Amino acid sequence: MSSSVRVTFQPENKTVSAAPGDTLLDVAGNAGISINSLCGGQGVCGKCRLKVVKGSVDFSSKGVGFLDRKEVDAGYVLACQAKLLQDDVEVWIPPESRQEEEQILTVDHLVHYTAPEVLEEGGASPSIPYFNPLCAKIFLNLPEPSLKDNLSDLERIYRELHRKFPDVKWEADFSCLKNLARLLRESRWEVTALAHMLDPHCYHLRALEPGDTSRRSFGVAIDVGTTTIVTQLVDLRTGQVTAVEASHNQQARYGEDVISRMIFACGRGGTDPLKNAVVNTINALISSLMASAGIKPQDIIAFVAAGNTTMTHLLLGLEPCTIRLEPYIPTATRFPWVRAADVGLIGHPEAVLHCMPCVSSYVGGDITAGVLACGMNDKPELSALIDIGTNGEIVIGNNEWLVCCSASAGPAFEGGGTRCGMRATKGAIQKVQIHGSKVTYETVGAAKAKGICGSGLIDLMAELAAEGIIDQSGKFIRLDHPQVRVVDGVPEFVVAFPHESETGEAVVMTQDDIGNLMKSKAAVLAAMKILLENLGLHFDSLERIYVAGGFGAHLDIEKSVRIGLLPDVPLDRVQFIGNSSVAGARQCLLSTHAFRKASAIARQMTYFELSVHPGFMNEFIAALFLPHTNMDIFPSVKNYLMARKASAEAQG
Amino acid sequence: MSSSVRVTFQPENKTVSAAPGDTLLDVAGNAGISINSLCGGQGVCGKCRLKVVKGSVDFSSKGVGFLDRKEVDAGYVLACQAKLLQDDVEVWIPPESRQEEEQILTVDHLVHYTAPEVLEEGGASPSIPYFNPLCAKIFLNLPEPSLKDNLSDLERIYRELHRKFPDVKWEADFSCLKNLARLLRESRWEVTALAHMLDPHCYHLRALEPGDTSRRSFGVAIDVGTTTIVTQLVDLRTGQVTAVEASHNQQARYGEDVISRMIFACGRGGTDPLKNAVVNTINALISSLMASAGIKPQDIIAFVAAGNTTMTHLLLGLEPCTIRLEPYIPTATRFPWVRAADVGLIGHPEAVLHCMPCVSSYVGGDITAGVLACGMNDKPELSALIDIGTNGEIVIGNNEWLVCCSASAGPAFEGGGTRCGMRATKGAIQKVQIHGSKVTYETVGAAKAKGICGSGLIDLMAELAAEGIIDQSGKFIRLDHPQVRVVDGVPEFVVAFPHESETGEAVVMTQDDIGNLMKSKAAVLAAMKILLENLGLHFDSLERIYVAGGFGAHLDIEKSVRIGLLPDVPLDRVQFIGNSSVAGARQCLLSTHAFRKASAIARQMTYFELSVHPGFMNEFIAALFLPHTNMDIFPSVKNYLMARKASAEAQG
Repeated sequence: MSSSVRVTFQPENKTVSAAPGDTLLDVAGNAGISINSLCGGQGVCGKCRLKVVKGSVDFSSKGVGFLDRKEVDAGYVLACQAKLLQDDVEVWIPPESRQEEEQILTVDHLVHYTAPEVLEEGGASPSIPYFNPLCAKIFLNLPEPSLKDNLSDLERIYRELHRKFPDVKWEADFSCLKNLARLLRESRWEVTALAHMLDPHCYHLRALEPGDTSRRSFGVAIDVGTTTIVTQLVDLRTGQVTAVEASHNQQARYGEDVISRMIFACGRGGTDPLKNAVVNTINALISSLMASAGIKPQDIIAFVAAGNTTMTHLLLGLEPCTIRLEPYIPTATRFPWVRAADVGLIGHPEAVLHCMPCVSSYVGGDITAGVLACGMNDKPELSALIDIGTNGEIVIGNNEWLVCCSASAGPAFEGGGTRCGMRATKGAIQKVQIHGSKVTYETVGAAKAKGICGSGLIDLMAELAAEGIIDQSGKFIRLDHPQVRVVDGVPEFVVAFPHESETGEAVVMTQDDIGNLMKSKAAVLAAMKILLENLGLHFDSLERIYVAGGFGAHLDIEKSVRIGLLPDVPLDRVQFIGNSSVAGARQCLLSTHAFRKASAIARQMTYFELSVHPGFMNEFIAALFLPHTNMDIFPSVKNYLMARKASAEAQG
Repeated sequence: MSSSVRVTFQPENKTVSAAPGDTLLDVAGNAGISINSLCGGQGVCGKCRLKVVKGSVDFSSKGVGFLDRKEVDAGYVLACQAKLLQDDVEVWIPPESRQEEEQILTVDHLVHYTAPEVLEEGGASPSIPYFNPLCAKIFLNLPEPSLKDNLSDLERIYRELHRKFPDVKWEADFSCLKNLARLLRESRWEVTALAHMLDPHCYHLRALEPGDTSRRSFGVAIDVGTTTIVTQLVDLRTGQVTAVEASHNQQARYGEDVISRMIFACGRGGTDPLKNAVVNTINALISSLMASAGIKPQDIIAFVAAGNTTMTHLLLGLEPCTIRLEPYIPTATRFPWVRAADVGLIGHPEAVLHCMPCVSSYVGGDITAGVLACGMNDKPELSALIDIGTNGEIVIGNNEWLVCCSASAGPAFEGGGTRCGMRATKGAIQKVQIHGSKVTYETVGAAKAKGICGSGLIDLMAELAAEGIIDQSGKFIRLDHPQVRVVDGVPEFVVAFPHESETGEAVVMTQDDIGNLMKSKAAVLAAMKILLENLGLHFDSLERIYVAGGFGAHLDIEKSVRIGLLPDVPLDRVQFIGNSSVAGARQCLLSTHAFRKASAIARQMTYFELSVHPGFMNEFIAALFLPHTNMDIFPSVKNYLMARKASAEAQG
């Protein structure tokens, strides 16, 4: 019995060794080939289809339902369910099973903190209280000691730091003393201090290095998403974003959502593989950031990470197990800073990592970052932040109070749970317009259509409803439309025909897809309505609504209102702010004031538990309409639909 | 050529392997046998005499001057100069060459900080502001979380700590989060927190352990002396000293004084052997303390060390090289705390080590501790602290100012530099009285006389002068006294005759010994006088004089004045305070307030450089008299001597 077999992946033509019993999904992962797997290898999403070209594998009956007869005959298997036998095999990965780089939402539409000029002292300035980076490199040109000026080496450094920062106490880490005498004399009394400035009254001296390195002082803001990780390299001297990189979270191998990852971590898998996967993902991004900016690891001295509570725990190597079980207790919600090197991140050996504070097990640091980034906690006006991911999080409040809730929106707007749903990567249909029989669409990168991303799904639903192709319950009613077809008795709308598509198959939205999207948008709106009503408020009370999420770069606010995902308020009240998580993390890198504000936000926020609320289910059912069962709360949509109908009848 | 030879030490009858070329001093050290070596193996003190009983060694001409013809013939060598050849050898260590446990001054005559009752909360109490230990163990009986009380694990701990310490902020070290979820649940929500309370506004949570261990909460105060290390085990809940241990500093192998150790550390030896030697010494003492008190390493959570600047650097593994060379700059004078485990000390893995702040390269943390311990910085009255070791340090001041200087007193009062001088160990003559021809003495442990320690030397000098056996310049004038004998033309006083002594040789004080003691006492008094005069003051201005040092447990103040070591002020102004260094360290263990005060003392103290003062040499020469050339500044001694003379004449 051979102890290893060879697996060749096409079209890469990459061959690796593996052991009998390994799944093709794991082998691909170990070979560095990313294959779609929404369910994390449970055999329930059908996204990881491969074709076995040579040799044979053990493919269990589980997951066969995702393949039709023809596909099975052609050698298709689900990679997660196909186990190696004693045979060498060769497999081919079809385009739709391949994870490609997304057009990930790496930018945010938020004000950048920018120092008005490069600060000579390398950091804080009393005239710009909000620009006070968490860490700074400070060049010190020390006077040489003499019999008359015989302070100790450390006191000499303190004296110079006091000169530059008169109102601040300094404390050195003990490690700074090691070889200090030699360092100062060999560098001819010119050294650069690495300062950690979290506490405004007492700065910490973390390291000293020879010469003047103060011009190479960078931080990395990280949005640690369940699906996607986004990083920004920030120049801590100027506040400018120098480079941006994003990629999939390699943790997806262990489960697509936080629940399946927690199950993995708390089962025999343990926390380590998940921690290593996210750290490896971030390190790969840091390497790219360094390459773009032409900097070295020791130039990166601070990290701020924003993630949901589970992702933050996994990044820090903390067991997330108690988060998942009643009474749902995380290890921490405010996290002490930690040496980034201790977590395994590439950077200066004394760089620090701060994680954004979380509110509870189900409202994480990404939301705290979002509130901080949109600034709703600073304004007297009543605002809402809606962050739509696999969980839809909603925060309502102002400068006096903040209440939040979390609704299980499902992955529909991120490309999961729909036949042709995909993330906003190349070939994703991101905009759709329908005028009678004329259907037009735009794809990401103007490439051949491969699927539909969140913004495309919203557009498409809104257009189908506006054209009367589906009714208010989402049911297809105009089966005569040239792009509606019925397969096995179930109607679907063809957005792109096979000849237009990358895969040679039609890109469609099925009746089931509409049902899933309906549930997602209903969950978000119902959650928001219940939350407002419990506060004695209604949609119209909201003077501003900030929308954040992974829909793609182009979210059509008006169409989002028309399907009832967002409430019907004047459009100028609604602002799409993009990736508010990384924006909040960046603000904290650049302002300890912002970081303290984030702590206050997390402490201040009240969590409202929807799942136990008796009215939620009714509201959810009422919202399973386009836009809503109660059209009176969507007056502008009502008018729009009436006008559109009248115009159609006039033309008809 | 054999690669190793065998060396047997008698009377231990201990045999070890060694390499040809090794010195007998090193071989003995490696075998755990302590041999006297005041000069650190330089061949210039003659204290490490051994007798080679079998085999032969290579004994260089250096050091032969310390042996007489008879001794050389009998096989005596200096252990530090005798190198192994290819022979196995057997050596005998005579009693006088053996380091024995000293009656080291481990107690101090200073008020203990004692909590009036065991504090329930394991630490600070607002009603006793001065009893606030640096570290404490705090038992937490946490309420189990529920859906209604769903704080994170860490916030639950913070809440309980805030309940116990309402006015203090808490910050946890990141390491506390590791496995916290598991720890809390496995210990059924009963845990003990290790708190570092240096900052009165923000306490640091350093570790958590299962169950209630708060009753086992100890600290160790350490006097890191150049010659001797003294440790006290302190119960941090009650303030009581639970155990005391002391021993020689194993660093003595590398040189008897700080200068020779610096030369070793900055030459090819490096800092590590010195660091390891002092850490090993302290660890052996900690093991003894633990055995006496019946505690385990994890029960020790804090250390405070007081040592001179060089000793502090060596303990922390910092190069002392720049201290020795102009402009005499230490790496630090205030030392950041460090994990004791990082330095290598036995204790709780998260125990902290604080070092007492130093003033300058030549005024160390032992002096800061002394000032703190005697409290002279708290009182309006003008006081002096005289700490007599190899360096005599003098501090003068009050609650408004402090000035200090350092005088090279030499090792005479510690047992070095005199023929029969020894430390205050068993058999040391510690008290002497002479009435006419009657000489009486007391030894440490009432043992057979072996030598004379500091207090005995002072007594003897004072008595010799009072009896007119020596004149004011220290010269023997009554050669007719039955216990004065002349050897090779040089007079000496026999305190103990051969038949009374341990070694079978007379215990004597020679003319040279008197000269050396005269220089030591003159240096101290001259330094004090110059310092006072430069401040516009004189001896009588001193309302209180605190005397600290290693004379032995019984210092006769009156006789110290009579020889002119201490100034002639009313005796009730003078207080012998013993080991003020360990007392100050203990106070800092028990009071963060005291520790902050120590920092203020070190910052506040002005160092007065004697060596460059033009008047010093004249004062020194004027003080080379008993008690002083100018008898007017010793009026009570003048009266005493006149009365004694009159009484003698009346009797004669």
